[in-house]
Amino acid sequence: MKIALAQLNYHIGNFESNTQKILDTIRQAQSQGADLVVFAELSICGYPPRDLLELKSFVEHCEAAAQHIAKHCTDIACIIGLPTINPEIKGKDLFNSAYFIENGRVKAQINKALLPNYDVFDEYRYFEPSRQTQCIDFKGYTLALTICEDLWNVNDNPLYVDEPMEHLSKAKPDLMINIAASPFAYNHDEERIQILGDNCRKYKLPLFYVNQIGAQTELIFDGGSLVFNDKGEVLDELPYFSEALRIYEFKEGKIQDLSPLQIIPQTDIQQIHQALLLGIRDYFQKSGFSKAILGLSGGIDSAVVCALAAEALGAENVMAVLMPSAYSTDHSITDALDLVKNLGCKHEIIPIKAAAETFDELLKPVFKDLPFNIAEENIQSRSRALVLMAMSNKFGYILLNTSNKSECAVGYGTLYGDMAGAISVLGDVYKTQVFQLARYINREKEIIPINSIVKPPSAELRPGQKDSDSLPEYDILDQILFQYIELKKGPAEISAMGFDEALVNRVIKMVNAAEFKRYQTPPILRVSPKAFGMGRRMPIVGKY
Amino acid sequence: MKIALAQLNYHIGNFESNTQKILDTIRQAQSQGADLVVFAELSICGYPPRDLLELKSFVEHCEAAAQHIAKHCTDIACIIGLPTINPEIKGKDLFNSAYFIENGRVKAQINKALLPNYDVFDEYRYFEPSRQTQCIDFKGYTLALTICEDLWNVNDNPLYVDEPMEHLSKAKPDLMINIAASPFAYNHDEERIQILGDNCRKYKLPLFYVNQIGAQTELIFDGGSLVFNDKGEVLDELPYFSEALRIYEFKEGKIQDLSPLQIIPQTDIQQIHQALLLGIRDYFQKSGFSKAILGLSGGIDSAVVCALAAEALGAENVMAVLMPSAYSTDHSITDALDLVKNLGCKHEIIPIKAAAETFDELLKPVFKDLPFNIAEENIQSRSRALVLMAMSNKFGYILLNTSNKSECAVGYGTLYGDMAGAISVLGDVYKTQVFQLARYINREKEIIPINSIVKPPSAELRPGQKDSDSLPEYDILDQILFQYIELKKGPAEISAMGFDEALVNRVIKMVNAAEFKRYQTPPILRVSPKAFGMGRRMPIVGKY
Repeated sequence: MKIALAQLNYHIGNFESNTQKILDTIRQAQSQGADLVVFAELSICGYPPRDLLELKSFVEHCEAAAQHIAKHCTDIACIIGLPTINPEIKGKDLFNSAYFIENGRVKAQINKALLPNYDVFDEYRYFEPSRQTQCIDFKGYTLALTICEDLWNVNDNPLYVDEPMEHLSKAKPDLMINIAASPFAYNHDEERIQILGDNCRKYKLPLFYVNQIGAQTELIFDGGSLVFNDKGEVLDELPYFSEALRIYEFKEGKIQDLSPLQIIPQTDIQQIHQALLLGIRDYFQKSGFSKAILGLSGGIDSAVVCALAAEALGAENVMAVLMPSAYSTDHSITDALDLVKNLGCKHEIIPIKAAAETFDELLKPVFKDLPFNIAEENIQSRSRALVLMAMSNKFGYILLNTSNKSECAVGYGTLYGDMAGAISVLGDVYKTQVFQLARYINREKEIIPINSIVKPPSAELRPGQKDSDSLPEYDILDQILFQYIELKKGPAEISAMGFDEALVNRVIKMVNAAEFKRYQTPPILRVSPKAFGMGRRMPIVGKY
Repeated sequence: MKIALAQLNYHIGNFESNTQKILDTIRQAQSQGADLVVFAELSICGYPPRDLLELKSFVEHCEAAAQHIAKHCTDIACIIGLPTINPEIKGKDLFNSAYFIENGRVKAQINKALLPNYDVFDEYRYFEPSRQTQCIDFKGYTLALTICEDLWNVNDNPLYVDEPMEHLSKAKPDLMINIAASPFAYNHDEERIQILGDNCRKYKLPLFYVNQIGAQTELIFDGGSLVFNDKGEVLDELPYFSEALRIYEFKEGKIQDLSPLQIIPQTDIQQIHQALLLGIRDYFQKSGFSKAILGLSGGIDSAVVCALAAEALGAENVMAVLMPSAYSTDHSITDALDLVKNLGCKHEIIPIKAAAETFDELLKPVFKDLPFNIAEENIQSRSRALVLMAMSNKFGYILLNTSNKSECAVGYGTLYGDMAGAISVLGDVYKTQVFQLARYINREKEIIPINSIVKPPSAELRPGQKDSDSLPEYDILDQILFQYIELKKGPAEISAMGFDEALVNRVIKMVNAAEFKRYQTPPILRVSPKAFGMGRRMPIVGKY
């Protein structure tokens, strides 16, 4: 039996393109002699469809697309993922299902039993968990087909009381197939290999695992589909961040012609780099835009975003706008211009001094002689956003946000100013990681001017300002933030690690106080296990 | 047995104030001879605590507060709500629990079985559903205690496969008690009475139902706690939108001294009016601010928000800023000034013409001779937001957003312009309802100038502009929006109701295309069964 794994990039709700892509892949697999081609979880509609699942017509479209695909599967079988209607009166109206299609019709339907409902996942919002299990017979083999999370309950503190493979294993299957929509985080690849391998070792079965690739706004799917033998050793790994189709021969209980692979994981920064490129590219492609705009300050964050955008979209599609204020230093301009030159992207210089002065004048009757403070600082930042949005409105550019995760965390940014944008590129990348990313971008030649990397970070909104006037040094700050945000540790636990107690309390207070700002920030490309946005839901007027 | 129902306003994570309030109420109930006092769901920590539940220290604080309260319950029993730790290894780590406290200690723990995970609810994100049921013996009576959703499965299309009262009823309880955190929507009171009454009729038992009041950012809890006899007739209803404590005598299987009430529901607009006042008041009080700012255009939306803010916070705490542009009409200024005079709130006039001209000048080298379009319109709207935010930053005002639900729906608003603000007051109120609200506010005397109500709505961002240039008339638009958003009907279904097909398609397309804007709007006070924000989660780069 020849099994093809199809690792594709779907577009949520775009039934036409998803169906076409699936049909093309089926034909391609067929031409290479495959008996069965396996697509990912919710491949028909893309993942996550979110509340589109509550529209009756959306679910009907899914079924119609699946039936259309089935008609073309006469000499080949396939597995696709889609939402289906729960025929029982009791319980939620939908299942998260896989169709096993053979001889032009749906031969079996498998429903997902374990529904992730944490971090970015909301599956129990829509789906009823399956309480039945069933193996599939195909070409003399018995297949144990499960959907993503169904295999993720093998650990010391299981999240679910049930484990579907426990039931399926009783039918003595020959192999496991798992179809997934497992989003990227820089540490997720290793965890995935561990847990899937644990399943193989526990049930003494080989496993074909199909993930998807592509970005759906904030969520980036990295692919990395896997083939394991019954000892839990990896026999093959599909590429990360790109589509792929590979065919394997399964005979006499074994996957043929492959020996265990030594997986050498990429560094976190390498992975983050590729994920962000895909995140930018798919945001534009799937929303039908091609041109990006951003404010280029001469600092490291906007330089990194500009370099990533130029790589993802083509330098000719990137407009960098330099907007010096009265407090901008000369080197900011020259550093920004050096970058523009290195990248070959377009640029404009629009000084905002006159705008800031106009607002100062307009507000004089109200502000009177009150001293310069954050109000005047923010006027500059917001004037820049106004210029960028005006150019966006005039020319159809999409504004890229350039804030990093450290700033988002502590609220060191101006709402409707530098926190504006359609998509945040670095909002899940701590400042210390931004430095690493800059050096990685420069790995072959100097793209980002060294001066942008080595000079002390500054918002340049008042004379001589430095980030370190208001914030702890980033290498300390980022460690505290990581403990609080990613690891969910409390102040006492973090202080016990050796950080200054007053500093820890101050940082946590800043994070909590910035909740109202983060509520209004653009969607953030998620690259860590805990990003701001849909995966972290905090009260705004709470007190804790 | 005397049972006290305590309908209180909690503050999420504010253990000090919640505990103090609960203890004060226990003392008060005790002084009035109560044997048992019943508080609402998650009363210890406030509802919804959201991802604070993922912090170990938060859950420990809940338990400590409950134990502290228990110590004070020696001559009286009480029921409180809090998250507790699931002792089993398998399943989620927490339960949504009620403690029954008697003789200074926790005598029984009841865990919620049915976990709402739709619309604004995310309970399965945190809690393991209870699979055990248990009645409580107290003073010779058997009490069937459940938590909110546990009673909401009695209908023709039940959302859950189980129904906890089916099990509890086998122990032949004497009465039902249900503790809730049931947020307001203008149609929710009638539904609540129906479903709770259905339980009484089904199980032939009386019911004491305790809801909470108070706003937690976007969610507004309306109280309206209820007492039913075993025929499902309402014997008493606690007030809406205010705290209350009432005591009932239960003897010989009956609630004493009360006869069935004829409930005359308030109109939707009356309810929305009170809900918005509470929403504004609690947002400020719970976040520690007192002064509001808003832009006053002379139109109806900002007039209504200004009047609501003045009533909620006191006119002396409201700063209305008039910011005429080159395209503002004279009547806009006079209408706005009339309102300010009627309310007695503060105001400033800051014309933004100079700001718009400055930006036009700055952008001239880029825009060249391209015609005036949405870019220039938005410059004006964003200049206003910049002025308001500068005053907010300088003086500590909180910016109230004045966009209505019709605008939010179709994206007829400027991101970082009139869509800015800390909290949106009317974002869940359709334009046609805003007119009704204005007339309701004027029910005794003219507060909102009649001219603001009767003149054709206009953004006044270009000469002679009217909303109806870009949008269908609001009475048609709002009906289509209601069918699509609240009732989740598709374009074919809506057209079949008699609306023009092309118009329906155009409106739905506008709603979907505005998803990226709504992602960045402030939290919206929720008054309908389907508000934008946490209760409606749509993909941004989807295509459907």
